[in-house]
Amino acid sequence: MNGKMIVSMLGKIALLEALLMTPSLVCSMIYSEWNIVLSFVAVMLLCLVVGFVLNLFGKTKDKIIFAKEGFVIVALAWIIMSGLGALPFVISREIPSFVDAFFETASGFSTTGASILTNVEAMSKGLLFWRSFTHWVGGVGVLVLVMAILTSDSGRTIHIMRAEMPGPSVGKLLPKVRSTAKILYLIYIFISLVMVVFLLAGGMSLFDSLVHMFGTAGTGGFGIKADSISGYSPYIQWVITVFMIIFGVNFNIYYFVLAKRFKAIFKSEELWVYLSIVVVSSGVIAVNIYNNIKAISGVSESIRHAAFQVASIISTTGYSTTDFNTWPTLSKTILLFLMFTGACAGSTAGGLKISRVIMLFKSIKANLKHTLHSRSVETIKFEGKPLDNESISSVNGYLCIYVFCMAVILLILSFDAFDFETNFSAMVACFNNVGPGFGVVVGAAGSYAPYSDLSKVTLSIAMLLGRLEIYPMLLFFSPHIWAKKKVNKSFKIIK
Amino acid sequence: MNGKMIVSMLGKIALLEALLMTPSLVCSMIYSEWNIVLSFVAVMLLCLVVGFVLNLFGKTKDKIIFAKEGFVIVALAWIIMSGLGALPFVISREIPSFVDAFFETASGFSTTGASILTNVEAMSKGLLFWRSFTHWVGGVGVLVLVMAILTSDSGRTIHIMRAEMPGPSVGKLLPKVRSTAKILYLIYIFISLVMVVFLLAGGMSLFDSLVHMFGTAGTGGFGIKADSISGYSPYIQWVITVFMIIFGVNFNIYYFVLAKRFKAIFKSEELWVYLSIVVVSSGVIAVNIYNNIKAISGVSESIRHAAFQVASIISTTGYSTTDFNTWPTLSKTILLFLMFTGACAGSTAGGLKISRVIMLFKSIKANLKHTLHSRSVETIKFEGKPLDNESISSVNGYLCIYVFCMAVILLILSFDAFDFETNFSAMVACFNNVGPGFGVVVGAAGSYAPYSDLSKVTLSIAMLLGRLEIYPMLLFFSPHIWAKKKVNKSFKIIK
Repeated sequence: MNGKMIVSMLGKIALLEALLMTPSLVCSMIYSEWNIVLSFVAVMLLCLVVGFVLNLFGKTKDKIIFAKEGFVIVALAWIIMSGLGALPFVISREIPSFVDAFFETASGFSTTGASILTNVEAMSKGLLFWRSFTHWVGGVGVLVLVMAILTSDSGRTIHIMRAEMPGPSVGKLLPKVRSTAKILYLIYIFISLVMVVFLLAGGMSLFDSLVHMFGTAGTGGFGIKADSISGYSPYIQWVITVFMIIFGVNFNIYYFVLAKRFKAIFKSEELWVYLSIVVVSSGVIAVNIYNNIKAISGVSESIRHAAFQVASIISTTGYSTTDFNTWPTLSKTILLFLMFTGACAGSTAGGLKISRVIMLFKSIKANLKHTLHSRSVETIKFEGKPLDNESISSVNGYLCIYVFCMAVILLILSFDAFDFETNFSAMVACFNNVGPGFGVVVGAAGSYAPYSDLSKVTLSIAMLLGRLEIYPMLLFFSPHIWAKKKVNKSFKIIK
Repeated sequence: MNGKMIVSMLGKIALLEALLMTPSLVCSMIYSEWNIVLSFVAVMLLCLVVGFVLNLFGKTKDKIIFAKEGFVIVALAWIIMSGLGALPFVISREIPSFVDAFFETASGFSTTGASILTNVEAMSKGLLFWRSFTHWVGGVGVLVLVMAILTSDSGRTIHIMRAEMPGPSVGKLLPKVRSTAKILYLIYIFISLVMVVFLLAGGMSLFDSLVHMFGTAGTGGFGIKADSISGYSPYIQWVITVFMIIFGVNFNIYYFVLAKRFKAIFKSEELWVYLSIVVVSSGVIAVNIYNNIKAISGVSESIRHAAFQVASIISTTGYSTTDFNTWPTLSKTILLFLMFTGACAGSTAGGLKISRVIMLFKSIKANLKHTLHSRSVETIKFEGKPLDNESISSVNGYLCIYVFCMAVILLILSFDAFDFETNFSAMVACFNNVGPGFGVVVGAAGSYAPYSDLSKVTLSIAMLLGRLEIYPMLLFFSPHIWAKKKVNKSFKIIK
């Protein structure tokens, strides 16, 4: 284990955190929230000191890191980002409990949007800004930023990339990792800016526009109103709907747009399955709520609420225009399924990812065929290319680990005496980075505040587990990665 | 597709059904329920006529069947057994709706124990006997009986065996399939008789003893009292607890006892994991309900209820000594997990089966190791033997199909307006052949009667899907198996 390298990387992350707090500091200055300004300054100073010290201790000439170190750095980075990011809430006493603040910040960076706040409108502007800004940072992936901005030699970044990139396969847009990352976040920033323009055009204030753009771009879902997006105009709701869908698309697609490779877009299986699911689910739910919910009267209103909620859940954002907890069971069950699927790989969304779901379906089909004709070998194709056995068994294996993690999380939550729907949906909503679940407690109109500290810590880890696609975080907590003897072995094998 | 062979096999199944109704006919004669006697006679005559006609039509010299035909025969057999078995309920008007009666009988043969009856104590003795007897028949597997009794050449039975045997691997006890089946059901009958003796010794009437033995041996769970086993003495409850655990053990173990291969028993990973889960779960639940449930006062009472319920759920029987729906969330969540695991492969229990769960755990562990050291190849051992990649990917693939089936069932159930806990637990309880779920509607004190016909049919199929370990029933409903072109291909390949 290259300990020095890890220490030095973590130092850089602390420095980055100080940098990331600057916009929020400025925001609290603009609104003359001097108590919040002081909190930010204190935490930023702490980050700078910690950062420089770690950098000093981590000085080493051995710049080689392996998968093992990559996983440790990624896992630690997200935990430390959340831990340091929680401090302004605690110091300002707006969220006095550290566990609560950690939950809120982990929820921010993991772009989940689950909140322990019971009265979000009482919060200061500066902290509301910071809270939403963590979504935006989390969305593009802190580590992609770290890698592209802070590191100079690209060799050691590949393993981090592998641990970080959402989705079953890392599609390298360009040969060099750094330039890939740069293009990705330039696209991200550009779409974010376009969204702000659309929101401003609808008469939204700059502060509200920025905060909601952060929540949408990161597919996070932290709002600044008790009723989320309900109070905004239908125009604003439609703008957010469209951008939630846009941020759920694989970013490779936007690269293809830039490169004018329209044929590749047209051929993208994942994209079309994703859009079909959005359209069909919205349609079914619109009919279902039109017939059953008295508060929803017109056809256009049902379509708007249905499309908004489908886009919000499938992109794992978690905003709401109405309390979907009161919707009929069919609509809620469809939304539950969308929590699991999530949107496209290579987007900012959570969940299993559509490409993985497609591959699972195809492997089931091949499995059934194989059962009938045991000697026939079926080649499964995905995105026009044949899938090898290793990819298939890795997707199947991912599902096993995914189910296993859910079982463990649910078991720990069950020490809290909430009903099954609440615990189950809290687990699903946090692990898949959606945010709100079902039931009165954790529903769109509720809050995670009533949960015990044990459950809050568990759910925080669940959010980070889900965001990092399980492996880095799970390996971080497994004794295996820390075993001394195995380290040398791994060096040998990987070299 | 060897259509004639299939027709002839189905004819034999109809004849068998008539034979199986004889004890119930005798029972209703003893209790002078002449209305029921008439119903049985009518249905038995129908079975005989249908059976002889099908046998006549199915006469063929081509006795070769392949996996394809095996799956079709198994799926059709269970559907027809349930369909014909439902008729006495309908004709006697005790369950006037055919869908309800089909649900009840499918629940019986699949050893699920889910019931649409709202007042079981109002039923006639003859039909209560028949209802429970289907558990006993289902337990050993109708097809094992069909194979051993009705078929003469063993070559064509192997594919049926493969489709029928519960558990991930068919452990051939003796080289010949028929003698294996014979030994299995002799063991089954012997343990059943021992259980009746123990129940009679506790002062239970012969009728009650037989009915409860049927329900326990088949791990079904149909009772004859509104409060299941609550009204019986602690002695009776303990006897049933022990025998539920016994019938959840892989029957290979009993063969090893007969063969005095005690070392093999001692080395059985599955057995010890199974027993450990039973002990640990009972312990945790006993403490949990002792501290939280006011109706349960003493230590011994908590242990008895906890052990009974754990044994009942893990063996997927579904009896209850108390309404476990009122238990704390932790206890309910543990019971939910046991619904999924089920007991040992090669027993009469449903669920995933312990051996499969062990293999899933081991594959997860290997997967994590492989992620760290991508070139290291880990051999997974199970029951002392290394598992090949095919076994592992087949278990992983099974989990995928299992999850997929659950999602489809849950979606169809969601058209009924019950709450999520009810729908989810109804799906889990039926698909894993447990019987009662959670919530007021389908809990231990409830009934599946309020569900719509669509949901009842879906749950009936779910019970049969679960009982046959998905493949035969799923393939039966897939267009693939009926495709003409592929048949020839399969002939070629398998030959």
